[in-house]
Amino acid sequence: MNVVFGFLRRPKVRIDIPRLKPREDVTSYPKVNLAELTPEVLPYLGQAAYVQLAIFEEVSDAIAAAPTVADKQALASGASQALDKHERLVAEIRRRVDQPSEVIEPFTAGIDRYRLVVKGADWYEQLASVYLTAGILDDFFTLLAAGLPGDIGPRCVAILDADTGRRAITDILSAAIAHDEVLGPRLAMWGRRVVGDTLLVCRSAIHLTGNAVSDEERIEPVFTEMIASHTRRMDGLGLTA
Amino acid sequence: MNVVFGFLRRPKVRIDIPRLKPREDVTSYPKVNLAELTPEVLPYLGQAAYVQLAIFEEVSDAIAAAPTVADKQALASGASQALDKHERLVAEIRRRVDQPSEVIEPFTAGIDRYRLVVKGADWYEQLASVYLTAGILDDFFTLLAAGLPGDIGPRCVAILDADTGRRAITDILSAAIAHDEVLGPRLAMWGRRVVGDTLLVCRSAIHLTGNAVSDEERIEPVFTEMIASHTRRMDGLGLTA
Repeated sequence: MNVVFGFLRRPKVRIDIPRLKPREDVTSYPKVNLAELTPEVLPYLGQAAYVQLAIFEEVSDAIAAAPTVADKQALASGASQALDKHERLVAEIRRRVDQPSEVIEPFTAGIDRYRLVVKGADWYEQLASVYLTAGILDDFFTLLAAGLPGDIGPRCVAILDADTGRRAITDILSAAIAHDEVLGPRLAMWGRRVVGDTLLVCRSAIHLTGNAVSDEERIEPVFTEMIASHTRRMDGLGLTA
Repeated sequence: MNVVFGFLRRPKVRIDIPRLKPREDVTSYPKVNLAELTPEVLPYLGQAAYVQLAIFEEVSDAIAAAPTVADKQALASGASQALDKHERLVAEIRRRVDQPSEVIEPFTAGIDRYRLVVKGADWYEQLASVYLTAGILDDFFTLLAAGLPGDIGPRCVAILDADTGRRAITDILSAAIAHDEVLGPRLAMWGRRVVGDTLLVCRSAIHLTGNAVSDEERIEPVFTEMIASHTRRMDGLGLTA
């Protein structure tokens, strides 16, 4: 997994994904306050904006590869929602600097490498990746926004809030899983790989927004909460996380 | 050129593209009234909707292939505009039938074949194709809307009206042409091929919306007007049509 994160210069990074209790216990997780982490605004916005552009490109790619027009249409709102989030985050950057692309550019190589790794071998793995990674990344950047100074945090939370555009993915995947008994176990395995790679991106994002390695202990409860949400998304597909 | 239009069952179709007079004479072209053609509403909407989805996919593909984040951002609004047009056309179909995809599906094979032909060999040809084909196709479906019964025609004209999202393409292409003296002549040749293939799609769309072959004479002035607009787009890139 860690081959994609050469840019972290910490090749030994390893994330243990805890086996989770059933959904009923989710409310007993500690409430996370990421306000303890204080991300720098521009690196935060640059990464969040490029992540949304990447989600847009992946959904668009899945639309192009969709077997039917009905599938294309079902996926279209997910693409427009990610693009809308990207453009609103870029607008926040533009309030602060003239060239938003200069703020975003330093983060593209790492995220592009990650995208290659979680791309998937076929259309269903690609759809599962988009659904699972976009869910984790939206959660993460929403939690991280709590530590931003001034009113930019709440504005970013509002920008990242919607995920309605991705609901069609669960319908497509659930129908496919019901028709192919091999697909479910394959996507369950794929989901486990994807979550590990995505949490590595989140961890690197914390460091790239100016937080020290010593803050890592504060990160663990955040990751526990994010994995709980991930488990609910896997449950929603009828898959074991 | 006509290999893509096997679905027309009229393999001998041939379009002569007239050499145009300079831009100053454009206003002297006869005013075209496509209200003489009476397209059927659902085949019109199905084709127009799929054309916009195809434009969206091509712009998205160009975004994914863009060399810089600044280029990606510049192209993003073209993608969202095409997707918005698609979704609004689908909404018009949904007012009439439950499954819009069934209205669209019959037209996908022909348009997909056309897309392969005008795809382009590199990113610049791809951008030129998107810019030129989307321009011609928006013009064409706007003109054809004049013959639709009731108030659906004006609504479609309003849906298809905007092309602001594609203006960034001319900036990117003009800058590239200024830096590479071989690129301009290559794109000029490419533009001539693209316009021919696109006019074939338009001609087939007229027939597929229920107009007889005998209506072809009425089509010629429309095509003349569309080619005049195409010539202005080529002029805007500093290229000869």
